[in-house]
Amino acid sequence: MESQANKAIQFRQFHRGPGVLILPNAWDVASARIFENAGFPAIATTSAGIAFSLGYPDGQRIPREEMLARIGRIVRAVHVPVTADIEAGYGSSAEAAATTTRELIQAGAIGMNLEDASGTVEKIKAARAAAARLHAQIVVNASTDVYLLPGGNPDADYSEALRRLVAFREAGADCVFAPGLKDADTIGRLVKAVNCPLNILAVPGTPSIPELGRLGVARVSLGSGPMRATLGLLRRAAEELKTSGTYSTMEGAVPYAEVNKLLGG
Amino acid sequence: MESQANKAIQFRQFHRGPGVLILPNAWDVASARIFENAGFPAIATTSAGIAFSLGYPDGQRIPREEMLARIGRIVRAVHVPVTADIEAGYGSSAEAAATTTRELIQAGAIGMNLEDASGTVEKIKAARAAAARLHAQIVVNASTDVYLLPGGNPDADYSEALRRLVAFREAGADCVFAPGLKDADTIGRLVKAVNCPLNILAVPGTPSIPELGRLGVARVSLGSGPMRATLGLLRRAAEELKTSGTYSTMEGAVPYAEVNKLLGG
Repeated sequence: MESQANKAIQFRQFHRGPGVLILPNAWDVASARIFENAGFPAIATTSAGIAFSLGYPDGQRIPREEMLARIGRIVRAVHVPVTADIEAGYGSSAEAAATTTRELIQAGAIGMNLEDASGTVEKIKAARAAAARLHAQIVVNASTDVYLLPGGNPDADYSEALRRLVAFREAGADCVFAPGLKDADTIGRLVKAVNCPLNILAVPGTPSIPELGRLGVARVSLGSGPMRATLGLLRRAAEELKTSGTYSTMEGAVPYAEVNKLLGG
Repeated sequence: MESQANKAIQFRQFHRGPGVLILPNAWDVASARIFENAGFPAIATTSAGIAFSLGYPDGQRIPREEMLARIGRIVRAVHVPVTADIEAGYGSSAEAAATTTRELIQAGAIGMNLEDASGTVEKIKAARAAAARLHAQIVVNASTDVYLLPGGNPDADYSEALRRLVAFREAGADCVFAPGLKDADTIGRLVKAVNCPLNILAVPGTPSIPELGRLGVARVSLGSGPMRATLGLLRRAAEELKTSGTYSTMEGAVPYAEVNKLLGG
């Protein structure tokens, strides 16, 4: 069994290729086991998906303890490295981010996503320092929400995104993340400018993974997309039950015995 | 807000029509909210789905406390009545079934599925007595696994299923359940013979809900089918990511803002 430190080193190395690091985002043990079983070398968590499954809207409404308990449960259930989305670190201060980092490492995660908020630079430094005090490795991915905001001016957005991501890299982030960015040319330009691994969020409409690879993207993740896709399936199954009263939406189910075996039965 | 007792009475009444009571089975808050939002008047839980999502194989491997905590979380997140699958009652004795029933009622559930095992008749009586001691209502659905067992002889199976289900009804079950039974003629015959509401498990291949209604079936549930269907979707999404590197499997996702709102955001 790999030690946690080895997993972290291995995970950081995945950002250097070969190929794009594809990180599917899990929200419970079953989704994590499906992704691990499909052969992905590492798994991310989706904070929105975890919040939704536990009954909270997104945006740090879930208590930190519940998020960390769920992350720990996922980590313990798979062999591959797990990197966790911890929103803005569950608090507005660098101290809060340090506490969350410490608990995240204790839960067995080897990476974290820290989102754009006031004080992100200080939070990245605090996370690094917290890991160092534990003599632990943590791979930090820091995101800017510039491309998630409504409206906006492409040129101004680019300058602002780059300014923030470079600040995050200089504060110690291993990888930087621009969710919401889909335009191939801008992605290619940003890859060259950030001068460290770049993470792109893949949603319908994002360039394909081979295209992202050609643009130099190091890491692709899916956010809450897979979780919300399962909710779409449930909604279609519900509609079918209520209209024709048939079950074809459920035809692609993984057989019971197979799921049971996947969960150690 | 409906009291728990009113919900139980209302839920029992749903077994008398009009129409078939369709019970989709949830395993977390998001799935429960999707089903409630789709307009179902009540929701069931899937014990297998809950176990899988928390990292256990099916079959009472999940600790009772974890199952009840998840059930309680689902109950608190919806307004409609929730009936819970509690496997064989989390113990081999009637006392264990009584304890589980008491805790289930305290968690806010108004119904329970009790599965075939030695002592099911005594467990049904113990569940009824436990509810009475709390001055609470609980709608008991008791199942036979006769049609889930491999091999078998249709005539012998029918006799044995009927014998068990009548015993469950006489012990106090409000509804009886024959998962695995798909044959329309046998379903129609069983409906008449059990002389109480009959629950059929709908899977691909089961007669449609309108057909089940014509046969006199009172209640249709889905077991772990919807949950396993979501895992099938994830597996297809994972395969697409690894082969073409595209995201079309995720195209039917419920939009982020809509899920967020569904969870109270």
